[in-house]
Amino acid sequence: MRKIKNILLKIEYDGTNYRGWQRQASRELKGENDSLTVQEVIETALKDILKEKVSLISSGRTDAGVHAKSQYANFRAATSIPLNKMGMAINALLPSDIRVLSVRRVPDSFHSRYDVKTKVYRYVILNRKYCSVFLRQYVLHIPKPQLDVSVMQKESKVLIGRHDFKSFQASDKKVRGSIRTIKDISVKKSRGLILIDVEADGFLYNMVRNIVGTLIEVGRGKRPKNSLKNILLVRDRRCAGPTVPAKGLTLLKVRYKNDKT
Amino acid sequence: MRKIKNILLKIEYDGTNYRGWQRQASRELKGENDSLTVQEVIETALKDILKEKVSLISSGRTDAGVHAKSQYANFRAATSIPLNKMGMAINALLPSDIRVLSVRRVPDSFHSRYDVKTKVYRYVILNRKYCSVFLRQYVLHIPKPQLDVSVMQKESKVLIGRHDFKSFQASDKKVRGSIRTIKDISVKKSRGLILIDVEADGFLYNMVRNIVGTLIEVGRGKRPKNSLKNILLVRDRRCAGPTVPAKGLTLLKVRYKNDKT
Repeated sequence: MRKIKNILLKIEYDGTNYRGWQRQASRELKGENDSLTVQEVIETALKDILKEKVSLISSGRTDAGVHAKSQYANFRAATSIPLNKMGMAINALLPSDIRVLSVRRVPDSFHSRYDVKTKVYRYVILNRKYCSVFLRQYVLHIPKPQLDVSVMQKESKVLIGRHDFKSFQASDKKVRGSIRTIKDISVKKSRGLILIDVEADGFLYNMVRNIVGTLIEVGRGKRPKNSLKNILLVRDRRCAGPTVPAKGLTLLKVRYKNDKT
Repeated sequence: MRKIKNILLKIEYDGTNYRGWQRQASRELKGENDSLTVQEVIETALKDILKEKVSLISSGRTDAGVHAKSQYANFRAATSIPLNKMGMAINALLPSDIRVLSVRRVPDSFHSRYDVKTKVYRYVILNRKYCSVFLRQYVLHIPKPQLDVSVMQKESKVLIGRHDFKSFQASDKKVRGSIRTIKDISVKKSRGLILIDVEADGFLYNMVRNIVGTLIEVGRGKRPKNSLKNILLVRDRRCAGPTVPAKGLTLLKVRYKNDKT
């Protein structure tokens, strides 16, 4: 009998045409559009190659329209296909907006979600008069006013640390705990873009998009000084800014315990 | 009576979904697919705004699937719309894969094609095992072998100067002259990509794509040393390399006499 291997995929995807990472239970599909999720597309390709049905465990879901430069997902299979051939084989079956970037065997105990130390999400804003055709699906375009990036950067720092982020959680989500730890947050200009990177041990639903929506109001001068501190304290979603569109958001990095990636 | 103004547009487009820049005569459309050209899409938007039919004169056509970061086109119209409002108005009517980046009044004598000094085209190659989902429509993906960029760079230099580029002209095109002047050519690596920039006073049909196809063979080690010099001399399309796909090609810059841009 062939030994069962624990195999880890590094995956990149353009989320534009997907309903997010996570496979939907069929009852949830009712009344929704019929677009696919990234997980089911990859699982279908794996089933074709492995001749067995496998379930992918990812570092976490990404929402509809969100992109990933580096998503990780592992699965268990009793396959004898050489791993250095498997990436090519999977990519040959995948649409061009999903790519497997690497395939590796990992210890049996490795779990793509439980072993996450931190994840980094990046939100990208194009803050100039006209949008760019080449970036149109990957940035939020804010024609004006010029956002005050240094104030956004300064104000954002109050979010670093272990806090209750209830004010930045989608209000329709009932999750038990809303305490998370933001390890780092940075707001910087790079080649005409504003990049907002958030590294945390976990993210609430819409957390980054709500933080960015609030920081944009800070950058527009619409929020008094130290307002982020107060928003955190009140634990009320209505006090934070709007949820910005998914298309500007990318899962940039996943850091694992014991540096497995 | 309102004065007729000569108005210059700077335009960016993602060529993926277009049959190139130039409007097609209806007889040429027979048997072709029904996708649009960039020129007719912009002319339709202008007609809506100006309430008169205008003809765009561009710096030159780009072929089906070729992109532009900086195309220029001028038109004449007796309009009183302020030019600082016109860009917004046009963009509001354009699809998101075409953007007008600036609108300026230019001297009556200015002609977007006749006044070109040089144009710069860039061809982009992604030379690694897996393609990138974010670049898939803008690069040629060559998984292997690793191309020898320094040899490509060195060999390419023989093309600089005034030469008969008949060997690099699409064989089915009968154009009177095939002498052009390449002002500069560079092959360099930048952030994982191979960028091939060609600046010339004019380009023959498929010239850049045929030069790049030949340089790739050089980079693969499939051509003897100094082969480009010989290919130039024989003036025979069959001696050069294949035509690479349009999607890797972008019109990067247009330089005008008297620096009008």
